[in-house]
Amino acid sequence: MQQTSTLNRRITLASRPTGAPTEANFAMTTSPVPIPAGGELLLRTVFLSLHPYMRGRMSDAPSYAAPVAVGDVMVGGTVSRVVQSNHSDYAPGDWVVSMHGWQDYAVSDGKGLTKLGTLSQPSWALGVLGMPGFTAYVGLLDIGQPVAGDTVVVAAATGAVGSIVGQIARLKNCRVVGIAGGPQKCQAAITELGFDACVDHYSPDFANQLKALCPAGIDVYFENVGGAVLAAVVPLLNVGARVPVCGLIAHYNDTALAPEPNRLPWLMGTLLKQRVKMQGFIITDHYATRYGDFVQHMSTWLKDGALRYREDIVDGLERAPQAFIGMLQGRNFGKVIVRVGAD
Amino acid sequence: MQQTSTLNRRITLASRPTGAPTEANFAMTTSPVPIPAGGELLLRTVFLSLHPYMRGRMSDAPSYAAPVAVGDVMVGGTVSRVVQSNHSDYAPGDWVVSMHGWQDYAVSDGKGLTKLGTLSQPSWALGVLGMPGFTAYVGLLDIGQPVAGDTVVVAAATGAVGSIVGQIARLKNCRVVGIAGGPQKCQAAITELGFDACVDHYSPDFANQLKALCPAGIDVYFENVGGAVLAAVVPLLNVGARVPVCGLIAHYNDTALAPEPNRLPWLMGTLLKQRVKMQGFIITDHYATRYGDFVQHMSTWLKDGALRYREDIVDGLERAPQAFIGMLQGRNFGKVIVRVGAD
Repeated sequence: MQQTSTLNRRITLASRPTGAPTEANFAMTTSPVPIPAGGELLLRTVFLSLHPYMRGRMSDAPSYAAPVAVGDVMVGGTVSRVVQSNHSDYAPGDWVVSMHGWQDYAVSDGKGLTKLGTLSQPSWALGVLGMPGFTAYVGLLDIGQPVAGDTVVVAAATGAVGSIVGQIARLKNCRVVGIAGGPQKCQAAITELGFDACVDHYSPDFANQLKALCPAGIDVYFENVGGAVLAAVVPLLNVGARVPVCGLIAHYNDTALAPEPNRLPWLMGTLLKQRVKMQGFIITDHYATRYGDFVQHMSTWLKDGALRYREDIVDGLERAPQAFIGMLQGRNFGKVIVRVGAD
Repeated sequence: MQQTSTLNRRITLASRPTGAPTEANFAMTTSPVPIPAGGELLLRTVFLSLHPYMRGRMSDAPSYAAPVAVGDVMVGGTVSRVVQSNHSDYAPGDWVVSMHGWQDYAVSDGKGLTKLGTLSQPSWALGVLGMPGFTAYVGLLDIGQPVAGDTVVVAAATGAVGSIVGQIARLKNCRVVGIAGGPQKCQAAITELGFDACVDHYSPDFANQLKALCPAGIDVYFENVGGAVLAAVVPLLNVGARVPVCGLIAHYNDTALAPEPNRLPWLMGTLLKQRVKMQGFIITDHYATRYGDFVQHMSTWLKDGALRYREDIVDGLERAPQAFIGMLQGRNFGKVIVRVGAD
C-alpha cells in the first residue's frame, strides 16, 4: 500500500511490549489527510528514521523522555516536503526535517522545523548530518576525548552512530577497533569505513580476539551495546580510559535483572583501579552548545570524502515495524531509513 | 611490648588472605635496629596510618600498585623522628612523614621524605593534612564538582576521607547527607561534622530513609563503599550527577562475583538516562598538580576552625593487625592512627 494524496496512514503504538517488541505492538490506522489552518503547513513524509531510542519510548518506565501513549503515533525523525503552506516562511516543495513520526502527513505551525537547503541526499539530515552524526561527534570528541595514538573501540561499529564514531576517531589518528555482528559487517568496517580492525561479537572466541586486536589496551570505548560486549571490553581498559555511554541495545528488552553473577562490583573495581571515566549522555542536551561546530566539521569531512556513510533503506511505511524489530536484533547494515513516499 | 631503642619490631605479611584478613595473615618479627650508612638517616616511627587501600596490597591481584611480598613488612604512611643523621638536610629530633610501613625503625637516604614544620599535631600529616585529606579534596572538588545547593551524599561519612568530603561540601554550601554504620556515627556526623543529615546503613529501612533525606535527588555521590549503599544511591542520582569513585570497602574481601542478580546493566542504564559521570581516581596521580592548592586551602580551613577532624588512636604496633581488621569492618570512628612510639 503506497502513500496517497488522500489518506494519512499512521503507525501507532497498539500495546507496550514485554521484552522484545513484536509486530502486534504496532497498529496501522488511516484517516483523511489533515488540513492546515492559518499559519500552518501540511507536510508529506518522504523519509522516516528508525533508531533504537524508540524502544525506550514504547515503555512507560521512567526515562529522559516521555513515553508514547498507547494509541498514539510512534515518534521519529522525519524528512518531509511541504505540500501546502499558510506560513510565510515555507512554500510548497520545500524540504524540512522534523519529528513527525511514523505517518504520511502532518500539520505543523513551523515550530521545531528545520528547512533543508540543497542537500544532495535529504535523508542524510536523519543520519550523518543529523542526530546520529551529532551523537557520534559529541560522544566521541567531548566525552571520549581521543588523542592521536589512542586505541578507540566502537561497539555497533556499522550502525548509524558507530560507523561515524570510528571514522572520526580515524581522522584523529587513533587506532580504531570495531565490534560488529557477523563477518560481513566486520569486513565492511575495515574496507568501507577504514577501521583498523573489527571483531565479530558472535564469535565464540570474541573476548580473546578483541584482546589480541588491542595489544596496547583500550583508551576510549564508545558504548552502544552493553552485555557481553561490555564484559569483554572492561578488562582491557587502560589507566585513564574514557567510556561515553550512548546506548545499551543489548538491554532495551530486559524485563528484570538477569539471574547471573553480579558484575557491578567488578565494574566499579575497574573504574577505581584504572581511573576510568564513564559518562552517559543524551544528545538533545548538546544542541545549544555544539551543533554549529558539528555541522561545520561534518560537512567538511563529507565534502572532502574523508568520511563515508551507508544507509539501509526500507521501502514503505508499512514495513517500519518489521524493520525496527530487525534493527533491535542487529539485522540492519548502516542507518535504517524508511522511504515513506516518493521525493 | 613497647618500642625500645634496641629492637626493630616489624609486622610482615605472613600469608595472603582469602576473603577477610585475619590476624594469622600477619606476623611480628624482631631484628636489631638498622644502622644508617653515609648520607643516610635512621627514623623512629611515632605514628602509623592504617587505611583500607592496604587490603589491596595484601593481594596479588593486578592493581594500581605492586603487592606486598609475603614476608615483607606491611606498607603504610608513617610519621617519624630522626634518631641519627648522616644527611645534611636532617638533624636528630626532626619530624618527617614517609612510607616506612608497619615497623619501629627504618633507614632512609632522604628520598620520599617530607620534613614536617611546626605541626601542632604531627599525626595530621597522615590524615586531614595528608593523603586522606588530599583524597577528599581532589575527589570532591575536581571530579564531584559540587555547586552551591547541590545535594552531596558521602559514604563512610565518619571515616578519614568521608568526614572531610562532607565538611568541604558544607563549606561549598551544599546539602550534605552522610551514610555511616550505626546511630552513634550518624549522630556525630551531624553534631561534630555539621552534616545536614546522616543515615545508618545497618537500618533495615536504609534505602527509604536515604530517599526521604534527599528530596531533591543526589547531585554528587562520593563513593567509598559499593554494595548495598551504592544500590540505594543509584536510583536517586539526578540528571548530570557526578560520582567520584574513591574506594569500595564492601568489596575488598570479595573472592568471586556474588551469586545475586546482575546489576551492571541497571547501573549502565542509569548512567545513560541520567547522564551521570562516574570516575575512579587514585590520589597519587594528583600530587604534582593539586597538592599545593590543597595544603593552602586545608591549612586555612583548619586554622579558621571551619573544619573538624577526629582520629581513632590505637596504642602499640602490636595492635595494628587487629585495628586494621576492625577498620575493614567499620569498627573505627575517624582516621585510624597507630601510636607506635612516644613523641
